[in-house]
Amino acid sequence: MTAIVTQSRYVYDFAEGSRDMRELLGGKGANIAEMTRVLGPELVPAGFTISTQACVAFMRDDRTEPAGLAAQVADGIARLESRAGRLLGDSADPLLVSVRSGARDSMPGMLETILDLGLNDESVLGLAASTGNERLAWDSYRRFVQMFGNVVSGVPGARFEEILLAARRRAGVREDRELGIDALKDVTRRFRTLYEAHTGDPFPQDPQQQLRLAIAAVFDSWLGDRAVQYRRINHIPDDWGTAVNVQQMVFGNRGAGSATGVAFSRDEITGAPDPSGDFLLDAQGEDVVSGVRTPRPLHELADELPEAYARLVKILRTLEQHYGDMQDVEFTVEAGRLYMLQTRSAKRPAQAAVRFAVDAVDEGLLTPARALATIDAGALDALLHPTFDPDARFEVLARGVAASPGAAKGEVVFTAEEAVTAAAQGRDVILARPFTEADDVAGFHAARGILTTEGGKASHAALVARGMGRPAVVGAGELDIDLRARVIRIGDVVVAAGERIAIDGGAGIVTRDDVPLVEPGRNARFERVLTWADEFRRLGVRANADTPADALKALEHGAEGIGLCRTEHMFMAADRQPKMRAMIMARTEAERRAALAELLPLQQQDFEGLFAAMPGRPITIRLLDPPLHEFLPDRVELAQRVQRARDEQAPELPALEQELELVLRLGEVNPMLGTRGCRLGIVHPEIYEMQIEAIMRAACASAPPPHLEIMIPLVDYDAELVELLDLVVEVGSRHGLTAGKDYLVGTMIELPRACFVADRLAVHADFFSFGTNDLTQTALGFSRDDVEAGFVPSYLERRLLDRSPFETIDEAGVGALVELAVARGRAGRADIELGICGEHGGDPDSIAFFDRVGLDYVSCSPYRLPIARVAAAQAALARSSGA
Amino acid sequence: MTAIVTQSRYVYDFAEGSRDMRELLGGKGANIAEMTRVLGPELVPAGFTISTQACVAFMRDDRTEPAGLAAQVADGIARLESRAGRLLGDSADPLLVSVRSGARDSMPGMLETILDLGLNDESVLGLAASTGNERLAWDSYRRFVQMFGNVVSGVPGARFEEILLAARRRAGVREDRELGIDALKDVTRRFRTLYEAHTGDPFPQDPQQQLRLAIAAVFDSWLGDRAVQYRRINHIPDDWGTAVNVQQMVFGNRGAGSATGVAFSRDEITGAPDPSGDFLLDAQGEDVVSGVRTPRPLHELADELPEAYARLVKILRTLEQHYGDMQDVEFTVEAGRLYMLQTRSAKRPAQAAVRFAVDAVDEGLLTPARALATIDAGALDALLHPTFDPDARFEVLARGVAASPGAAKGEVVFTAEEAVTAAAQGRDVILARPFTEADDVAGFHAARGILTTEGGKASHAALVARGMGRPAVVGAGELDIDLRARVIRIGDVVVAAGERIAIDGGAGIVTRDDVPLVEPGRNARFERVLTWADEFRRLGVRANADTPADALKALEHGAEGIGLCRTEHMFMAADRQPKMRAMIMARTEAERRAALAELLPLQQQDFEGLFAAMPGRPITIRLLDPPLHEFLPDRVELAQRVQRARDEQAPELPALEQELELVLRLGEVNPMLGTRGCRLGIVHPEIYEMQIEAIMRAACASAPPPHLEIMIPLVDYDAELVELLDLVVEVGSRHGLTAGKDYLVGTMIELPRACFVADRLAVHADFFSFGTNDLTQTALGFSRDDVEAGFVPSYLERRLLDRSPFETIDEAGVGALVELAVARGRAGRADIELGICGEHGGDPDSIAFFDRVGLDYVSCSPYRLPIARVAAAQAALARSSGA
Repeated sequence: MTAIVTQSRYVYDFAEGSRDMRELLGGKGANIAEMTRVLGPELVPAGFTISTQACVAFMRDDRTEPAGLAAQVADGIARLESRAGRLLGDSADPLLVSVRSGARDSMPGMLETILDLGLNDESVLGLAASTGNERLAWDSYRRFVQMFGNVVSGVPGARFEEILLAARRRAGVREDRELGIDALKDVTRRFRTLYEAHTGDPFPQDPQQQLRLAIAAVFDSWLGDRAVQYRRINHIPDDWGTAVNVQQMVFGNRGAGSATGVAFSRDEITGAPDPSGDFLLDAQGEDVVSGVRTPRPLHELADELPEAYARLVKILRTLEQHYGDMQDVEFTVEAGRLYMLQTRSAKRPAQAAVRFAVDAVDEGLLTPARALATIDAGALDALLHPTFDPDARFEVLARGVAASPGAAKGEVVFTAEEAVTAAAQGRDVILARPFTEADDVAGFHAARGILTTEGGKASHAALVARGMGRPAVVGAGELDIDLRARVIRIGDVVVAAGERIAIDGGAGIVTRDDVPLVEPGRNARFERVLTWADEFRRLGVRANADTPADALKALEHGAEGIGLCRTEHMFMAADRQPKMRAMIMARTEAERRAALAELLPLQQQDFEGLFAAMPGRPITIRLLDPPLHEFLPDRVELAQRVQRARDEQAPELPALEQELELVLRLGEVNPMLGTRGCRLGIVHPEIYEMQIEAIMRAACASAPPPHLEIMIPLVDYDAELVELLDLVVEVGSRHGLTAGKDYLVGTMIELPRACFVADRLAVHADFFSFGTNDLTQTALGFSRDDVEAGFVPSYLERRLLDRSPFETIDEAGVGALVELAVARGRAGRADIELGICGEHGGDPDSIAFFDRVGLDYVSCSPYRLPIARVAAAQAALARSSGA
Repeated sequence: MTAIVTQSRYVYDFAEGSRDMRELLGGKGANIAEMTRVLGPELVPAGFTISTQACVAFMRDDRTEPAGLAAQVADGIARLESRAGRLLGDSADPLLVSVRSGARDSMPGMLETILDLGLNDESVLGLAASTGNERLAWDSYRRFVQMFGNVVSGVPGARFEEILLAARRRAGVREDRELGIDALKDVTRRFRTLYEAHTGDPFPQDPQQQLRLAIAAVFDSWLGDRAVQYRRINHIPDDWGTAVNVQQMVFGNRGAGSATGVAFSRDEITGAPDPSGDFLLDAQGEDVVSGVRTPRPLHELADELPEAYARLVKILRTLEQHYGDMQDVEFTVEAGRLYMLQTRSAKRPAQAAVRFAVDAVDEGLLTPARALATIDAGALDALLHPTFDPDARFEVLARGVAASPGAAKGEVVFTAEEAVTAAAQGRDVILARPFTEADDVAGFHAARGILTTEGGKASHAALVARGMGRPAVVGAGELDIDLRARVIRIGDVVVAAGERIAIDGGAGIVTRDDVPLVEPGRNARFERVLTWADEFRRLGVRANADTPADALKALEHGAEGIGLCRTEHMFMAADRQPKMRAMIMARTEAERRAALAELLPLQQQDFEGLFAAMPGRPITIRLLDPPLHEFLPDRVELAQRVQRARDEQAPELPALEQELELVLRLGEVNPMLGTRGCRLGIVHPEIYEMQIEAIMRAACASAPPPHLEIMIPLVDYDAELVELLDLVVEVGSRHGLTAGKDYLVGTMIELPRACFVADRLAVHADFFSFGTNDLTQTALGFSRDDVEAGFVPSYLERRLLDRSPFETIDEAGVGALVELAVARGRAGRADIELGICGEHGGDPDSIAFFDRVGLDYVSCSPYRLPIARVAAAQAALARSSGA
């Protein structure tokens, strides 16, 4: 009955690990180990990692420290002491350590950290002596007692805060850092008394005991409510456990010859190949970032500590080469000796990212493929639009959501009609509305920029503005837009119609000052990046474009075709809305046909323009999609006009009443789930017939003939597709055009049912285009409006969601439907062409998904094309490298 | 290079086939063969079937008659002639045949039929002589020329009609049957001239040639546009082909000793065990049904043709025994000899179906299992509600859609408030509205019946009325309900508020007469049927019940529990709406909590009542589901009140404006896709907390403790479920109640995403309940409103849909999602309880689907429970017999 206990190994010195050992050492442990390995042990404060296995054992054995751990930790500390030449908690020159959690995946703020462990009533004096900074020593000690008391022994944080509050009151100061040394000593004493009162034990003076308790507390924090909740929401298994990192503390405030700072391996704004950053002599890391003292530019460190600086520059280059990316590091110089505390890929604006990528290839540091991988594709947007001159000084009138990048200036107008009129007169205008609707789209065309007080990044204004490449600031809630008085108010300031304002939609800023704008211009480096991208990507890229101007812009940005032409946008133009409205309000089919006959030549012109703008490349035209009543007047406003006419016994009352009755009858409770898309085309075939006729006439009138793809939206049943396919074929044959030869016919896949019956649909379709906006709305059962106004902001705040599913595709639901439809679609027709034309077509993460599931192309706004090209290349490269 | 041709067999005499040979002989051929087999060849007019294989060969060989077919057909005709003792097209006493298509599945009206083949200029005289009916002979001949000319040679039907029109004009008559013999002869001559002019050939006189051409024409009709279109829509493979049936014509109008009629093996109204039906002496089949002559009751045939009658009665019994079901037959007596032309299961009203089932078991004809299978479960509804006395005479005021069965009488009221007041005074009322909304639900409770002028079977009025078991006639569009004048108008008739009307919601009738009502009473036979059903079914049955009264009704109808208690219905009651509105319109959380505190005791009472009504059985309570603004006033009406106040400068203007602003802000563009269900519970946890508190208090106050299941609606993400599960557990623990022991917590599966992540949801859920109403809305992307007002009626008319997907589950889309969720749910938790609580829970076809995919129970309106029990039994029996 003897058990053989194989003692597990739990403790790994930093020098033993590497970045591949995340599973065992956690993310932080693996990262410190990697840096130790690359730079050598003397450059990284020494220490060791207690592996996640120890935590797993701790949890398994009912929160008992696993056998052998204590001895292994003691050995680790002994090695640390021998290396540092100091003893943990020594009374003369103490070695202090930090104890930090580090799970396999980052769980920000969920797990515990204790700094300055090893301090006690004696070592605090030693620290004061050795650093020459008594205040630092006592402030560190009081922080240690506070952190330890709270984390290890559960003393409520509020109790410590009360003591600090009283101390500040007594000292007549407002912030802790203004407390003097005696006050800090007093606070520390009170903290220890509090600790003793709460736990029944004196504050532990033995550093070994402090360490043992701290390690157990970190393990315990893995099982804390907050952490458990976080893991449930983020699907992190409970049995992973956390590692614990024990690392020697270093002090950049140890007097002359000490310093601390942050550095970038290249200029973090421009990407130019000189290191940049900030430092402070004789300071702690938090002083650099807190703004208490003004940090100095990094290159001045060369004058102060030339040896350390030279070494740092060399290290930056080494790390950049090792990680294959621009680095952002934290460093400390303690008494002349350089320590590297952290390195990570540098966040950088688009121009710096592009410059780094190109320079890195030219320097032979990276291949084009690896250089591409260093770029945040989503940020490239900024390179394509004018911005406020970064050197200009101006007064901010209000801030809002940066909804569509680019800067614009112009006179304020308050209605789409005014915008159209002013634009026709050659005036630049900014359209200001509380929020925008389908009715306002003509105004988007005419205006230089859009300003709203409601909504966010997924509001109508934001979506349409991004689609058209119009700068937009939305949700600028401080402003009060008074449509009746035709003024914008903020505080005492009043901006009247016709006054000039400027907006920067990339920064979310509104101003009345005449800020100079900076045009993006052609960027040769960016063009090189895009050339590489085109070489590596597998996905085709097309543009969502409704007008010849859109199409030209799309070509300029590298579109290989048009993936979505929304014919309804053509009806939004000011000269067409009345005709469209007449069509909708027609009481008989004959009336409707008459109105359609007026629209026909206009649509034909539209299509001819589009075909001429993009010769020889695929052009996908979607037949009318939105519910008809989107083109009708607002019912609440109309109801009030009726009431006013009634109260005034106005002669137009009967006509208005009739109009209201019709609007109410055409209205739908849930228009998104109503008579729209192909349902319209089946119930009112004359509408689709007019559109198809216009397309066919335009095709016949164009040379060379267009590469035409006709798309039928919102299909649920193959019978719908068959019925409308017959209509297309019939109209086409009137013009001697043959399906499959002169044009293709396909369908949007945008309803869950369509995904399930994709095999049946594919039999009749030359292509599918996934409408992931609508598919997201139906699969998740919430409309895009809700992302803004409804519950989604609340979900994001509570971390129930990490991103809006309208921004990045929801892989578990919507993505699964797309995969299903791809498989079934190909089963129904092996060579079916598969694309996607929702907003997700311009989102890098979504593009990676579409690449993975094997779509043929993505289609997005012309202004997102460069992003799509880079993201598609990154996706292809990641896939081929098995990442 | 010699090919060995194995000559295929294409022709099968009726005596050779059986009902199992549909694939080869088509549906009609197999059916005639079966009857021939059962009754013997002398009772069924002889003939043969040309198999579907011949059609397949015909299509394969580019519309050429397959080798050997002509000879086999000639042999078949020869056998027919020898049996009949007449020759095809003989000039003295001709054998005539019909040539009919018959595909494997019925394709009504799509394929061709030719009757009286064999007539020509000579045989028409023979037919006149042998039948003694010259008019019959010439009318048959002109019909034959017309049918043959149109079907075989493509002469447009309109051209024949023009000739008939001219003939009627000349004769001064209005109908063809008034044409005299000479006129018919003249018409026939003109038809033949038309035929010759159109085809360039004389009308074929050779019966063999007629036959060959007719057969080819039937094959051709399989490839006709209409048929191809029909097959595409109904997913019938093009390569099945159609069979062709060639059958001897018999004549019930061959003089004395001839008759024709229809017969039921039992009384078709009551199910009593005496044959019933109609016949005419010396008449053709179409005379019996056309109403030209008044048919005589079947039993009188015993006096006229006693031998034939006796034989018929015996045959009816034989057929009933053979098919195991009540039969509906067509028969003809030709010169004393009885022929059976068709037999099929008799359509019958519910009471007859139940009586037959019970009698058949008592007679030893059927086992209870087989007897159950003969009942149309969907029709049983009629047995549970009072109806107009079938013997009463009354004047119909208007007809509408029979939306909810049962008859009711009462005074007309026009608002829910009036209904509530009147009911409180003990008056019976009928609530009349153009259409109803959530606001009106209190009125449904109070009224005896509901009458609307808009909407159909899936309108709000219909759904709520069926759910509550209130009789309803909806969409009675002839009526004009004038809410201002408080009258109903139709023509010159005006029904004022307070006048009495009666409605029969099972027949869709409205009257002002005081019609006596007949109560359903307990029906012992029906109870026996239900007892059998309970024995055979695997599925549990629960009821959707919101009140103690509902629960008691549910128990009476056999509910095993409550599958859905919609807590929002509790807020619709007149005394609660103001409190609910105050809660919604609260501007702060504190205001909201105050309003909720008032609702809490009321909800607790509700739950206590429910628990008391259904002790010991599962009660599933769904937390608040609909969008909050459903409880708010109508925005158009409110906007007009604001305008009126503005125009009148009324002092209440600011308050009204504030209300309107709030209503507009709370309004959602697509409320179905908005902040509702668990999203409400997360954004405003205080609402759900109140509900859970009320449930837990009620549970503690109830003895015995309820079998409680708390259901969280509209879940997309497992994080939502986890967050709300925590809330339930927390509130429960305040009352010492433990999840999994004292109550279960589960979720509705009603969004496509939830189906895909059902494994993750199942980890946290004790049960799933499929909300197939919402799942249908999201999977198909159209709202239930559209079934009525939108495009769905148009789809049904065009046969793009055969039934509303809200009535019977859409298996390809919604069903596939349910199956996916069942599989994944069980993978996440093997013992998870699975139910369904949408409207489909009371639909027999949907119940069969739910049985097949393995759900544990269905839940439906109390009034649909008997249907569900029978349908569930039928489903289980069908499954176990492999059908």
